[in-house]
Amino acid sequence: MSLTSTPTTSGSDRLYTFVGGKSGPWKVTSCLPVKGDTLPPADRMEVLQGTLTSPPHDTSWMLQGVTSNERYVTRDEKTQLVARQVALGRPEARCAAFIPIRKNAAWWAMTQDERRAVFEDRSHHIQTGLKYLPGVARRLHHCRDLGEQGPFDFLTYFDYPQTEITAFEDLVAALRATEEWKYVGREVDVRLVWDGA
Amino acid sequence: MSLTSTPTTSGSDRLYTFVGGKSGPWKVTSCLPVKGDTLPPADRMEVLQGTLTSPPHDTSWMLQGVTSNERYVTRDEKTQLVARQVALGRPEARCAAFIPIRKNAAWWAMTQDERRAVFEDRSHHIQTGLKYLPGVARRLHHCRDLGEQGPFDFLTYFDYPQTEITAFEDLVAALRATEEWKYVGREVDVRLVWDGA
Repeated sequence: MSLTSTPTTSGSDRLYTFVGGKSGPWKVTSCLPVKGDTLPPADRMEVLQGTLTSPPHDTSWMLQGVTSNERYVTRDEKTQLVARQVALGRPEARCAAFIPIRKNAAWWAMTQDERRAVFEDRSHHIQTGLKYLPGVARRLHHCRDLGEQGPFDFLTYFDYPQTEITAFEDLVAALRATEEWKYVGREVDVRLVWDGA
Repeated sequence: MSLTSTPTTSGSDRLYTFVGGKSGPWKVTSCLPVKGDTLPPADRMEVLQGTLTSPPHDTSWMLQGVTSNERYVTRDEKTQLVARQVALGRPEARCAAFIPIRKNAAWWAMTQDERRAVFEDRSHHIQTGLKYLPGVARRLHHCRDLGEQGPFDFLTYFDYPQTEITAFEDLVAALRATEEWKYVGREVDVRLVWDGA
């Protein structure tokens, strides 16, 4: 089992492309609009490192983001994260969630100290995430600063074994109950199971 | 006098393109490698909002970046900045400096609290900049998260009246004497005078 296919073009090694349509090793089990509009229907999803020169003819949607330096984590938190976090693509991680998110104008109007206060001091985003490590692996992709104006600010992506399904539901429920989540303007929750080679 | 030309293509309204070559309203008076390699020679520079479908045949270099949310400023600092800062493009601002910068791996390996400590607590980047407002106008463009791998992380751009030339030299000298500047891996300093319509 391999999470990412061979890049089909060159480009930044921090760029990832999520393609929903009729092909790809991940089978879509649900696609729910948590806030705002949903995505067009897709049966399957593929995750590519890099970009696509020619998306398959039956592509339903294609979303891109780049991994980047962390914007809120302190050194103490980073030390805790590094000690516990695991990489995506474990053979047993046959469940995944792809959750693209847009934050609203009020979020982006805040300064760094204000965003940090909401994100961690009051919403405990990092501490909550830590509780679910190493069961759930995650990778955050940023869209907002890419050249093209996209529909989302972040593409969040998780994989986990079947034994962690309940834990993962607890994690997303906890994050959606926070003050930080009030700044989410659009969120779609795509769930997937591995059905590849 | 207008700082930016009409966009030649659509695209993010936060994307700017700096084009060095034989055309453009800004005449290059010097181009010095402060650290690392310089840029190829250019006589003139143009600043465009958006991107270019077909760069002029005699283009020497083309660099792109996007404006973004501020990464370090607190609300108190933002209040001080907003009260004093001016927009680029004042008719009297006939001098400009285009200073693309790449920071090194050690910078990007730091966490948010560590970068903030270097940036402001120990290097006083924001407080130093404030001293030169409203004489010097500035705009910061981020390159690092654009899809393509570029040679710089930031494109810094300033304009100011002739009466501020000495002040501007003091500003760049102060910033280059800081701990933060030790994390600069490459910096080119392009100076310009307005020679447009």
